[in-house]
Amino acid sequence: MWGKGFWRSLEKYLETLYVSGIQHSHHLLRVRCLNAAVKSAKIAWAFVELRCTFGGRSIVPDLTVFCWERIPRNENGGVANVFALAPDWTLEILSPGQSQTKVTKNILHCLQHGTQMGWLIDPIEQTVFVYAPEPPTQFYDEPAASLPVPAFAETVRLQRVTRS
Amino acid sequence: MWGKGFWRSLEKYLETLYVSGIQHSHHLLRVRCLNAAVKSAKIAWAFVELRCTFGGRSIVPDLTVFCWERIPRNENGGVANVFALAPDWTLEILSPGQSQTKVTKNILHCLQHGTQMGWLIDPIEQTVFVYAPEPPTQFYDEPAASLPVPAFAETVRLQRVTRS
Repeated sequence: MWGKGFWRSLEKYLETLYVSGIQHSHHLLRVRCLNAAVKSAKIAWAFVELRCTFGGRSIVPDLTVFCWERIPRNENGGVANVFALAPDWTLEILSPGQSQTKVTKNILHCLQHGTQMGWLIDPIEQTVFVYAPEPPTQFYDEPAASLPVPAFAETVRLQRVTRS
Repeated sequence: MWGKGFWRSLEKYLETLYVSGIQHSHHLLRVRCLNAAVKSAKIAWAFVELRCTFGGRSIVPDLTVFCWERIPRNENGGVANVFALAPDWTLEILSPGQSQTKVTKNILHCLQHGTQMGWLIDPIEQTVFVYAPEPPTQFYDEPAASLPVPAFAETVRLQRVTRS
């Protein structure tokens, strides 16, 4: 049930970005709502502009999602300050003037270090590129397209189908 | 031997584009040299800005390479005017102001219709993205990096290694 809420929020969040482009305040606000759901769910946690350092590189994706058990903790059980690992899902939203090559390279760097999936959202072209170890890179530019999600999210989606 | 010359020319050609950006006259001149070699080789043929129409879409990549036996012919045995098929190798060189999303989508459209490999060259970022059905999308930004080529070119490369 919680997972259901989380993924619905994430979809809503991405849909908003996809339609309206990037608006930073919405960005933060929506992810706060999203995290409120996921904190109870203990499935995954989404972070806005979290610095992740791994493979000799430090990146700050627009949005990262970590499976619950992979979230680094401090000695009190809280979320650690330093994330020295690749996220499970990385999402980047192109902003005008940003180098798409640099952003794509960051996504591919994540995939080379265990990330399950990377989304590159181009709000101007209304297109989402999905990068993953497999299948080959795909693009989605139809509003009704069903976008693939990482395996850990897929379970939740299936659950949604069987319960509805 | 001819194949060897062809791929060496292609590498030289791409290297020039990679270093200096796109210069249209060089573009044409070099592909003319390249084709002079490949016409004898009967391995493949490279075309500059050739319109290819397939899968409900018409694209004009910067450079396409077709395996010899897949080149459409007219009744006299010459190269046909219309190419209603995907190339074996598609190469795009980003020019300033061009939508990288549109160019990437054209490459992925090719891959969805049988193209073995697509290169996306960003001269500003000195990066080549290699898209293929497998392995996952990779990037190359080290000057000394050995870039993967499609299977039909790989044979020629291996030949080169064993003969040298």
